Amino acid sequence: MSAEAAYDFDLFVIGAGSGGVRAARMAAAAGARVAIAEDRYLGGTCVNVGCVPKKLYSYAAHFHDSFDDAAGFGWQLPSPATFDWPTLRDNKTSEIKRLNGIYQRMLEGAGVTLFNARARVTDPHTVTLSNAEGDVSISADKILLATGGWPWVPEFPGSDLALTSNQIFDLETFPERFLVLGGGYIAVEFASIFNGLGSETHLIYRGDLFLKGFDQEVREFTRDEMAKKGVKLHFAANIARIEQSNGALQVALTTGETLEVDAVLAATGRQANVTGLGVESLGIALNGDGKLPVNERYETTVPSILALGDLIEGPELTPVALAEAMQLVDIHFHQKAPRPLNYDTIPTAVFCHPNIGTVGLSEEAAREKFDKIRVYRTDFRAMKHTLSGSQERMLMKLIVDDASDVVVGAHMVGEEAGELIQGIAIAVRAGLTKEDFDLTVGIHPTGAEEFVTMRTPSRY
Amino acid sequence: MSAEAAYDFDLFVIGAGSGGVRAARMAAAAGARVAIAEDRYLGGTCVNVGCVPKKLYSYAAHFHDSFDDAAGFGWQLPSPATFDWPTLRDNKTSEIKRLNGIYQRMLEGAGVTLFNARARVTDPHTVTLSNAEGDVSISADKILLATGGWPWVPEFPGSDLALTSNQIFDLETFPERFLVLGGGYIAVEFASIFNGLGSETHLIYRGDLFLKGFDQEVREFTRDEMAKKGVKLHFAANIARIEQSNGALQVALTTGETLEVDAVLAATGRQANVTGLGVESLGIALNGDGKLPVNERYETTVPSILALGDLIEGPELTPVALAEAMQLVDIHFHQKAPRPLNYDTIPTAVFCHPNIGTVGLSEEAAREKFDKIRVYRTDFRAMKHTLSGSQERMLMKLIVDDASDVVVGAHMVGEEAGELIQGIAIAVRAGLTKEDFDLTVGIHPTGAEEFVTMRTPSRY
Repeated sequence: MSAEAAYDFDLFVIGAGSGGVRAARMAAAAGARVAIAEDRYLGGTCVNVGCVPKKLYSYAAHFHDSFDDAAGFGWQLPSPATFDWPTLRDNKTSEIKRLNGIYQRMLEGAGVTLFNARARVTDPHTVTLSNAEGDVSISADKILLATGGWPWVPEFPGSDLALTSNQIFDLETFPERFLVLGGGYIAVEFASIFNGLGSETHLIYRGDLFLKGFDQEVREFTRDEMAKKGVKLHFAANIARIEQSNGALQVALTTGETLEVDAVLAATGRQANVTGLGVESLGIALNGDGKLPVNERYETTVPSILALGDLIEGPELTPVALAEAMQLVDIHFHQKAPRPLNYDTIPTAVFCHPNIGTVGLSEEAAREKFDKIRVYRTDFRAMKHTLSGSQERMLMKLIVDDASDVVVGAHMVGEEAGELIQGIAIAVRAGLTKEDFDLTVGIHPTGAEEFVTMRTPSRY
Repeated sequence: MSAEAAYDFDLFVIGAGSGGVRAARMAAAAGARVAIAEDRYLGGTCVNVGCVPKKLYSYAAHFHDSFDDAAGFGWQLPSPATFDWPTLRDNKTSEIKRLNGIYQRMLEGAGVTLFNARARVTDPHTVTLSNAEGDVSISADKILLATGGWPWVPEFPGSDLALTSNQIFDLETFPERFLVLGGGYIAVEFASIFNGLGSETHLIYRGDLFLKGFDQEVREFTRDEMAKKGVKLHFAANIARIEQSNGALQVALTTGETLEVDAVLAATGRQANVTGLGVESLGIALNGDGKLPVNERYETTVPSILALGDLIEGPELTPVALAEAMQLVDIHFHQKAPRPLNYDTIPTAVFCHPNIGTVGLSEEAAREKFDKIRVYRTDFRAMKHTLSGSQERMLMKLIVDDASDVVVGAHMVGEEAGELIQGIAIAVRAGLTKEDFDLTVGIHPTGAEEFVTMRTPSRY
């Protein structure tokens, strides 16, 4: 690649989250002169207020079940386990600081210049950095916008009393009574986390059922399992207002009910984080979802300005941002032809309790797309729970296009669903058939073996 | 299929383990008149003294780690958990009785006649049953031998003081000091179980390293992890003799060392369970491994006498016996052509701690088979253990035939390895390439995502 000496850098990345860091490192490895600006925290949402702390808190919340399950296996706790929120919070913070340091060393090791400053684009080849000492402008052949997303909260009386996922991990005191507003994956995950940690937990969602877009049976099964674990689900409800009184929050619902809680989390969606980024001044328009339109080369309408990750259309997932970053570097710094990602077979996990793992089409989407489908499904109590006494059940289903025998969707609700679905996702993405699944011998005794031993369709 | 009225039954199955029960049910479903004889317990080794109790005890043993891990997540146990062996043992027994009942109802529901008696073949179409009331002979068009395996113990002074896997689950008292002799998967599983339940645990194996036949790096990694957890590994050692004194067992090793323990388990191999079955009298010879040779129709040298499962060559695994049973019924009762199983890509798990999951070729076997291979491997501390403080590590590796890019082996040591490998096994059995793995998006944050994100070969 040509190093345009006319510019300070070949690539200037704004935002050191998953996608920005990966692109910066890969471009530097390709020989480009790369800079990256970050004004908040290295690693972005995922490392600091997303995947990582969420997963750690999810682990913490699972211990509650472990203690309960242990008795049936002969383990006795002479006195009940107690939970100390500051220990979890502060250990999480230490771990994240460690990860921040790893990101910094990775960038430095790759030869990327790091600016701890807020950055905005001021012309197609200029980035202006602001910090306490003032502004400085830096030129670059290409500018990559990678500022990710930001929580969005609807306005209602007292909505400023609601926290977002940016604050929830660092609460000063543990909320004995917790309320989450929303029906997306962040909402169900935090409901499971605080419920598992011991909060009385309410989930409020305006729709009839959470997790829109997921397989309907997965949604219903998850609803039933979460309710069994004690999460109080309020569907077809919204928050009318929140007031502070008696040292607590009084949350009036649109249903007329009022709930007294210690913390409210608004998990009501995220928006592309473009405020102050300078895109409007360059004439780059946002689409209807507030995202930046890009072509298959990840170029905005200003070709020297690129974007990826949660700023553009597509699933808002770390591995997607990483894949986009690698694509983008291949295109711009290795002169490879674009090879668009197949977003249809991107597997995901929801770390509610029990977990959800999913890849490919829901039963409903498959029914719409194909003339005839076969649905293989099973639900059962995992072997562990024959002794634990827990009534938790596991759901597994495969959706097959009848004409081609191709497995077009695989879904699971149950312990470690994300871990189990990853391998299944390789098979589904590659277009393997139900016969390929059938010809695979099961690993006994596991839960996962059900995915290769379901022989009779439950319905068509 | 033709019901030969000349015989009492179309199929007589001896042994109601995994393979026998499956064959009986499937043949009955195909319209055959089927009987099955079992003198011990319905469900065979797997349900009664194998997979099922082993997995339940493995769960029990994992709680020990859970309690330790919990502290870093903010959970405090005011006083340490205690373990009560009779609770585990008796809950296990209740669960197995429940499963025995399910097997009985499945057989009855399928219309299979069940004889609670010991059976032997007395001519190519006759089975003789013995119980307290005497002998009775029953004729059948086909006789299926499905009596499985039986533990084998070498002879040494005091070898009668060693227990086998048939007795170990039902010990009257918990062995505070436990010794297992052997280097196969049963040995490492029980070492992990008793170590996890709190025994001081010794594993004695005459070879240099346990788990012969597994990938060498997997074997070494497992050795190191088990040692970290406190299992005392004695390789290149054997038991010279066992003596009873001081209310304990004095185990003298060939190395000169003497260990005082409360129980000794001989996990020194299994043999085909043919004693008293009558095969010699019919001129059916055993092969060098003591197994029954069969053709691809599962026929012994006497064509009306069939055999499957641990009685014949092949991996001694429940899912293999099940697959063979289904094949056998397809061939003999649905007149289908034999479709030999591919034993090369049968995935398995070893439920030692941490677990092993594996499918396909070891690095060593692949190196021998292919001109050039690529090895992708990673080992790391799982995210959970960044807070738990546990030093447990996870190993994952993929073996790729360089010429074809086909993934010919996948191996893992780590939590839930069996669950993770099942999906990977679908991909490996189908012959998917490393590119197929690379094109699959990871599920973040999971351990399993490493299987699709390893990009640089560690060696060739």
